[in-house]
Amino acid sequence: MRELIAYMTAEQPRINATLEDETRRLNALVQPVVAHVLKAGGKRLRPLLTLLYARALGYTNDDIYPLACSVELLHSATLLHDDIIDDADLRRGTPAAHTLFGNTKTVLAGDVLLAQANSIVSRYGDTRLSACIADAIVATATGEIAEIEYLRSTDHPQDTYIDIIKGKTAYMIQASCQLGAMAAGADTAQVAAAECFGMNLGIAFQIVDDALDFSPSAKEIGKPVGGDLREGKLTPPLLMYRDTLAGAERAAFVTAFEAGSFTEAEIETVAAAIRDLGLDARTRALADTYLEQAQTALDALPECAERIALTQTIDYVRNRSH
Amino acid sequence: MRELIAYMTAEQPRINATLEDETRRLNALVQPVVAHVLKAGGKRLRPLLTLLYARALGYTNDDIYPLACSVELLHSATLLHDDIIDDADLRRGTPAAHTLFGNTKTVLAGDVLLAQANSIVSRYGDTRLSACIADAIVATATGEIAEIEYLRSTDHPQDTYIDIIKGKTAYMIQASCQLGAMAAGADTAQVAAAECFGMNLGIAFQIVDDALDFSPSAKEIGKPVGGDLREGKLTPPLLMYRDTLAGAERAAFVTAFEAGSFTEAEIETVAAAIRDLGLDARTRALADTYLEQAQTALDALPECAERIALTQTIDYVRNRSH
Repeated sequence: MRELIAYMTAEQPRINATLEDETRRLNALVQPVVAHVLKAGGKRLRPLLTLLYARALGYTNDDIYPLACSVELLHSATLLHDDIIDDADLRRGTPAAHTLFGNTKTVLAGDVLLAQANSIVSRYGDTRLSACIADAIVATATGEIAEIEYLRSTDHPQDTYIDIIKGKTAYMIQASCQLGAMAAGADTAQVAAAECFGMNLGIAFQIVDDALDFSPSAKEIGKPVGGDLREGKLTPPLLMYRDTLAGAERAAFVTAFEAGSFTEAEIETVAAAIRDLGLDARTRALADTYLEQAQTALDALPECAERIALTQTIDYVRNRSH
Repeated sequence: MRELIAYMTAEQPRINATLEDETRRLNALVQPVVAHVLKAGGKRLRPLLTLLYARALGYTNDDIYPLACSVELLHSATLLHDDIIDDADLRRGTPAAHTLFGNTKTVLAGDVLLAQANSIVSRYGDTRLSACIADAIVATATGEIAEIEYLRSTDHPQDTYIDIIKGKTAYMIQASCQLGAMAAGADTAQVAAAECFGMNLGIAFQIVDDALDFSPSAKEIGKPVGGDLREGKLTPPLLMYRDTLAGAERAAFVTAFEAGSFTEAEIETVAAAIRDLGLDARTRALADTYLEQAQTALDALPECAERIALTQTIDYVRNRSH
């Protein structure tokens, strides 16, 4: 992972500076809300993917940074709206925006960011880019609605789960890769390969996230263990756990899941069972099947430093521990 | 107004069919929320403005309809988010979306519509259009935040009020006109004239709306009289009313306004006083100053049936009674 880490370390300051610059373009009233959600930050994986794809395909102009940041702004917009929807008090251990700024400002700051992402992309004078980001927003919001529709449901197939996480996570990661390839003027086949890489990396990213929900390290980042069980999301570890049960035990689990009536002690017990049965590892193995497809999609790229770094994003997703 | 009404009557079915068609493109889960807010409808002034501007400037292709509907979808998105923000139970006499579908679906359906508006525009392959709609969304959300920031404030100047209503209403009406002119391939001067017309028409539209808030006919469309006083929005009739007061009476009004402590009887009394003092008429006279500028902007257009209809939209805004 040495190359990827070097790349991340080298690019994060410029990415963060661009995000700050775009924030300053917004109305002063919105800036504190946006600065708050951007600060919660993370590794800026999405902008990095745009940079890596654009450069792997020969785009060397530094005007790429705002484009690379557009999906991060879009991602931040969804975090703001999710905070309200989930009514969460904390996001990664810091207070959720709506607890500091109120629902109204948080909804509207999210809208401003969604629009700003589109506005940035429109500056590049290429409607392929505009269509790409607009479609990613439609797919993301639609996926989030689907997630809510299937809350506390235990009878939907794994395909539905995959559709939900595509919407929730993968379309945005896919768009990051596509934007980079498109900005580089790549042909249809290259853009399709970027699309395939991003989609599979994104699906795997969310599956690993769902495995991590039952890891004790979740606590360290301010997330309670078993959040998905508490919220009634039938993620792979929970689906697998349910399938280990039979008879009255299974019926009791399904009833409690559908009613959302688990006690904290019961959640701890289920989380421990998931770890003891190795279902978190089996969930990661499911993620691996998508990561293999992501790896194959990289074959379309020329040999270069960025291709090595992109390969390492696969390892990064595979090995995430928090 | 004969020409405008004929135009509206002729175009509304096709506009509504296009809106339905765009709704059907969305995920099935979102469609009921979107259909609900579109049904609340109104006159489809925004799509009509796009059609009128495009045709006045020589664009005859029927592929204009989705573009014309993009701002209506954007407008609908803001209605969905506003319903949540205002926590209103009714919108124009029918139940607000969030009371039927819940906050979560309503927030996300609004996001889908914002994105769908961008997605539609990107199909036209002209980044001027994409930038126009993205910037209108940024300005609208920013204006709504400003409105909230100045709720219950009595010491901001009328300029701030104008900035707020630009954001709330005028940027979207402006964008409707700009999109039409841009789609017709108009030059910079023509697009600037469309911008000027739309901005002034939009400002006047909202000022008249604020005058109508104290009209007894507000009740007929399911809006309580004096809603702006109840919510603490210092609109022109309220600003003028405050300026008719002096001494202890003025101090009491300001205190109650800032505290939001008016009783329903007091609100009725203020509304009656505004009408008796002719402050609703004076508010309409303020709107007229903007309508005159809108009229001047139409001079840039060639003589044609659409120019006549656009002139009549000015009369329509001036004479609105509900």
